[in-house]
Amino acid sequence: MEIFKNKRVLITGGVGFIGSHLARKLVELGAKVTIVDSMIPRYGGNLFNIRDIRDQLKVNFSDIRDASANAHLVRDQDYLFNLAGQVSHIDSMTDPLTDLDINCRAQLILLEACRKYNPTIRLVYAGTRQVYGRPDSLPVTESHLVQPVDVNGINKVAGEYYHILYNNVYHIPSTVLRMTNVYGPCQLLKHDGQGFTGIFIRDAILGKPISIFGDGSQLRDFNFVSDVVDALLLSAAQDVAIGKVYNLGHSTHYSLKSFVDILSSLCEFEFNMVPFPEEKKRIDIGDYYSDYSLIKSELGWDPKVSLDDGLAETIRYYKEYIQHYLEEYPA
Amino acid sequence: MEIFKNKRVLITGGVGFIGSHLARKLVELGAKVTIVDSMIPRYGGNLFNIRDIRDQLKVNFSDIRDASANAHLVRDQDYLFNLAGQVSHIDSMTDPLTDLDINCRAQLILLEACRKYNPTIRLVYAGTRQVYGRPDSLPVTESHLVQPVDVNGINKVAGEYYHILYNNVYHIPSTVLRMTNVYGPCQLLKHDGQGFTGIFIRDAILGKPISIFGDGSQLRDFNFVSDVVDALLLSAAQDVAIGKVYNLGHSTHYSLKSFVDILSSLCEFEFNMVPFPEEKKRIDIGDYYSDYSLIKSELGWDPKVSLDDGLAETIRYYKEYIQHYLEEYPA
Repeated sequence: MEIFKNKRVLITGGVGFIGSHLARKLVELGAKVTIVDSMIPRYGGNLFNIRDIRDQLKVNFSDIRDASANAHLVRDQDYLFNLAGQVSHIDSMTDPLTDLDINCRAQLILLEACRKYNPTIRLVYAGTRQVYGRPDSLPVTESHLVQPVDVNGINKVAGEYYHILYNNVYHIPSTVLRMTNVYGPCQLLKHDGQGFTGIFIRDAILGKPISIFGDGSQLRDFNFVSDVVDALLLSAAQDVAIGKVYNLGHSTHYSLKSFVDILSSLCEFEFNMVPFPEEKKRIDIGDYYSDYSLIKSELGWDPKVSLDDGLAETIRYYKEYIQHYLEEYPA
Repeated sequence: MEIFKNKRVLITGGVGFIGSHLARKLVELGAKVTIVDSMIPRYGGNLFNIRDIRDQLKVNFSDIRDASANAHLVRDQDYLFNLAGQVSHIDSMTDPLTDLDINCRAQLILLEACRKYNPTIRLVYAGTRQVYGRPDSLPVTESHLVQPVDVNGINKVAGEYYHILYNNVYHIPSTVLRMTNVYGPCQLLKHDGQGFTGIFIRDAILGKPISIFGDGSQLRDFNFVSDVVDALLLSAAQDVAIGKVYNLGHSTHYSLKSFVDILSSLCEFEFNMVPFPEEKKRIDIGDYYSDYSLIKSELGWDPKVSLDDGLAETIRYYKEYIQHYLEEYPA
């Protein structure tokens, strides 16, 4: 990863979960990093995430919906890791237009800024496996039909398509990663809007009871955040990734119950299985795990961290720092 | 089609090409029709299209981006045929945000209006085969991957997904039709931004030379507008169509050259084949024709009008009325 040394790198959503880990790694690799974050209170930006690297990078507080700021920020950058987004599926249903403005409109604004002011910038976009919805077949390959089950999934796939289109038509070199359940230190825990991994990890740490719907047998794949950072860097570093959409994933799949079982070996909490509420069952996607053989064969990416090791590290982190991740969490 | 008698029907884009034909048919069937149109000069709304039915329906001039107007208009309607959109692929690349605001954002605004004020309205959305991009295999079925080749294709598929999502989650009964090349009387001819059928028909009528790139062997399927009106009505009338996405298409496929050959049997003009310009070749989608067996088997739709008959009727219409379709056409 010598390639990033002295390179100018912009990270949108850089004060958030994955963005802050990526920023730290790029600082270590000798890159000149600028992170952009809107600091919208309900979203993932948390200055505690960058407390140790704050002096080694530039922080620019702005919203990716801001066309003028984007136009200025993308100039003279070598790389753009585009991680900013509205990530809550629930919020996308209660406020679909905000989700659209951030996950579609702002993406197009940012790409237009690249087209006009820096068309050779190397771009990597954080997509999501959510675009597949309820899988027709497993494991899910990149040629599985897109059939999103919420507004967020629709807007995220439009965001992907824009990136690939600007690659194909304007030759702005772009790669899309469809991420699956990412977990680790620095994840948002302060509310329940960003998925079950954060909720379960938080409640395990706090010793609150954890409930699983149904028998907890639904399978998922999980990526520890450092493996996702590797995927982002490998994608930006290799030309074969240009214009591609890659699934991330993991060789081992776990049931939700096994996920909670690992947590219960690390923390004390009560664990219940409750009947599936009818309205949740209707939108449940069943099992999901991806086929990530494309990125494995083309970029050599293969996640190194097991769920046991990753959760142990995550719990160690939050046992020390949980108070910095609860500000908005109702007591 | 007794079902539409005395029913309240809203048509967005109702002063345009397909919308005005649909409105006329619904008036004949005894429906109480309201048409909505923004009358944006570059778009398809043309009052000449509804000259004969103006007194038999209500015309509401408003933009589908207008949330308050939508909220008022959808109340108490039984059916909503949602045809309004920015349809120019070229314009979507020069002004992507306007395309997004109309084809994504306004669709979500309209669906939110339905959810809040009329969740039992029966909705049919005009999608496009453009979402498939360059086909991987022919004929193209509904399970072909979506891989749009322009901003319009991306935003139109997001529009589709929103309709299906609001059907699945909020039970607003919706159907999506992926239309292929639609032609006929009342089509926009005043500029070159809406595809080759309008350009060729106009230039044939005006006796201007027509050029085809390459050898003109690219295959397409064509639907005469009355067949598309039938598909819209059948979709709205049958419950089996709820939540479905259907391809439209035609049993006979024609090369671009055959399309022009038919025109040349009806009009006098010069016809040239010119080498494919490199930048056009790069974005050309090759052959396209759809498999429309799903709508055929489920709704009994099968287009009745041959390309020969449809073009003859189209040319008859424009020979009489072309002056009403050229206002903005540079002389």
